[in-house]
Amino acid sequence: MTSQLPLGFRFAGVYTGVKKNPNKRDMALVVSDPPAAAVGLFTTNRVCAAPVRVCRERVPMSDLQAIVINSGNANACTGDPGVENARAMCRQVADKLGCLERQVLVCSTGVIGRPLPMEQIAAGIEKIVGLATDEPDSFEAAAAGILTTDTKTKIAFASVQTPNGWIRLVGFAKGAAMIGPNMATMLAFILTDAVATPEELAPLLRGAVDVSFHSISVEGHQSTNDTVLLAANGASGAPIGNRVREFADALRDVCTQLAVAIVDDAEEASHRITIDVVGTRTDEEARRIAKTVADSALVKTAIYGNDPNWGRICSAAGYAGVDFEESDMSLKVNGTLLYDRGTPTNFDGPAESARMKAQRDVHIELVFSLGTAKGRFWTCDLTEGYVRFNAEYTT
Amino acid sequence: MTSQLPLGFRFAGVYTGVKKNPNKRDMALVVSDPPAAAVGLFTTNRVCAAPVRVCRERVPMSDLQAIVINSGNANACTGDPGVENARAMCRQVADKLGCLERQVLVCSTGVIGRPLPMEQIAAGIEKIVGLATDEPDSFEAAAAGILTTDTKTKIAFASVQTPNGWIRLVGFAKGAAMIGPNMATMLAFILTDAVATPEELAPLLRGAVDVSFHSISVEGHQSTNDTVLLAANGASGAPIGNRVREFADALRDVCTQLAVAIVDDAEEASHRITIDVVGTRTDEEARRIAKTVADSALVKTAIYGNDPNWGRICSAAGYAGVDFEESDMSLKVNGTLLYDRGTPTNFDGPAESARMKAQRDVHIELVFSLGTAKGRFWTCDLTEGYVRFNAEYTT
Repeated sequence: MTSQLPLGFRFAGVYTGVKKNPNKRDMALVVSDPPAAAVGLFTTNRVCAAPVRVCRERVPMSDLQAIVINSGNANACTGDPGVENARAMCRQVADKLGCLERQVLVCSTGVIGRPLPMEQIAAGIEKIVGLATDEPDSFEAAAAGILTTDTKTKIAFASVQTPNGWIRLVGFAKGAAMIGPNMATMLAFILTDAVATPEELAPLLRGAVDVSFHSISVEGHQSTNDTVLLAANGASGAPIGNRVREFADALRDVCTQLAVAIVDDAEEASHRITIDVVGTRTDEEARRIAKTVADSALVKTAIYGNDPNWGRICSAAGYAGVDFEESDMSLKVNGTLLYDRGTPTNFDGPAESARMKAQRDVHIELVFSLGTAKGRFWTCDLTEGYVRFNAEYTT
Repeated sequence: MTSQLPLGFRFAGVYTGVKKNPNKRDMALVVSDPPAAAVGLFTTNRVCAAPVRVCRERVPMSDLQAIVINSGNANACTGDPGVENARAMCRQVADKLGCLERQVLVCSTGVIGRPLPMEQIAAGIEKIVGLATDEPDSFEAAAAGILTTDTKTKIAFASVQTPNGWIRLVGFAKGAAMIGPNMATMLAFILTDAVATPEELAPLLRGAVDVSFHSISVEGHQSTNDTVLLAANGASGAPIGNRVREFADALRDVCTQLAVAIVDDAEEASHRITIDVVGTRTDEEARRIAKTVADSALVKTAIYGNDPNWGRICSAAGYAGVDFEESDMSLKVNGTLLYDRGTPTNFDGPAESARMKAQRDVHIELVFSLGTAKGRFWTCDLTEGYVRFNAEYTT
């Protein structure tokens, strides 16, 4: 019962011609046969894409019928015609499904500043609606249809037993940790057959996103198109109301798996870094310190060099804006104490470096004596390959 | 009258043995024969070095007699013994000069977490005090004695005519834009023979630092030792009170020259980037947008690739936390309009790239239609060489 698709959803993924490579899918569709409750979280960038504007107008909603996503063109910085094109995508899907335009949501990802090629998009929609099925292969095709610089699909399943039977959740996402030359966006879609209202779903999604997608840091650049959507269509007949805590855990688990998969898909990264901060006064303090360490180019290049550089980590913590004394802080890297309440320990540098080099995962633990709160962030190292990849001339 | 040292100061720079290379000076001394008014600004990092703690106790002050600076060892993360060592350096200088320990300030820069080698330091102080002169060569030696990963000294002069005669200012600084493996610190010393009180100097230094040292961005990592000191010894006999605005301009000019020299000394950087933001509601908004663009790894790698990537620049502006609509923003790079009130222009990409490649300086101008405020930041590009340099194993 851990990898079954939620009931009542159908999926498809096709190639429309927006991407150059015909072996890559560039459109995905999710159909919910029962109308679904849906909520979303979106980029807070002031420069936001047309589909984000359209989705923001429509969620929260109680009668979602479909989500259409195209990859290869982000429909961003395209002005009012871009918004009209995003609406047209919804309308074309609605016409094929026999529902209203406002019951369809739309997402885009890819290059920005170029008009959507509406002829290919329309032909793609014409084709994709008839292909949607509830088979795993169709789901895989949809998960592939949203990718841009990603090297693999990102998928996570969960399920919750309730007195009224099983609730199933599935999520799929895109986003290469090393956000690519085309401003590759983070998109995630979580679908469940639970019975739920938008009012129930909204705080659960916010809580899950805070500890997952908002807890990964690659380069701090927020895209024009970032979107997370959660839809619950009730096809299981089981209300989340009976098992809210278990549902929240499952949702957080799906989001965390997808977020870590995004960090993991870091082209050119050699280490995945988990940063745990414990013993602060508030979770917010812990998260702020973890994020500051995760965003530090000096920490990330040190890890690339397999350098257990306690000084860069501790001093990054020091400018996070959290009030503490040096003697309040200790640091472990891969389990070894490098810094003990204000002073470095006499650790074996070359041995720690060799240990770091031997494994992909690096674990940074900052231990404070201020309280009992905690927070976790994930990031990856900063490599020469990253710079090469992102310096590529693309306009 | 533009490159004369202020009256009443003497300088020296020597090699003590803290650095491995005996051809590099690693100690500097500034003596003010008349007691000087002095103010300072320091790192806000919670992890701060011992000399910063000692200086913070002493400034603002009215009777400074000397500043001693050592390079090669930062005396940071060294606990209470580190603070005792910093005080000992002041005491040794004071004993040689015949003044009080509290009339001497101390700065350090170099590796962190290692005790200062006090035998070499003491021998250095024994030697350096007798060498201090008001000759340009001695000043140059002092400017060299504070360097770590810097490839050259950073020096700036200014002067102001007043009814009571000329006021002279000189500044010297260290800090390699690509902050080095040893957490290379930013240190700057500005000396003037003006007559001034600490109360007059403090707001002038704050204003000058905001538009200079606080307006350069390399990787956002704030060091444990960052210090800017301003000392006025009155040897000119001319009070700043008669020409406050001119003095403020001269001070800002000295600080800006030093700050830009730090960005310019970016090992492995191929472009110096000036970011001008104009037309915001407040200067604070302009500075926040300029800083966000300056901190963006995606913008900095694009410039390294000579890519006039308007999307990365505009979207970085979009997440600066300033409220605007896309149609409020336009972008010029090297004078060419790439983005006009919300949409990209039809510019010649390859030609713009070739132009960027041909020159070291890159000028980014973000023009808003929100108001009349403005702000400027300087940074440099993010190169493969930077990652290589900072990934070097150093513990």
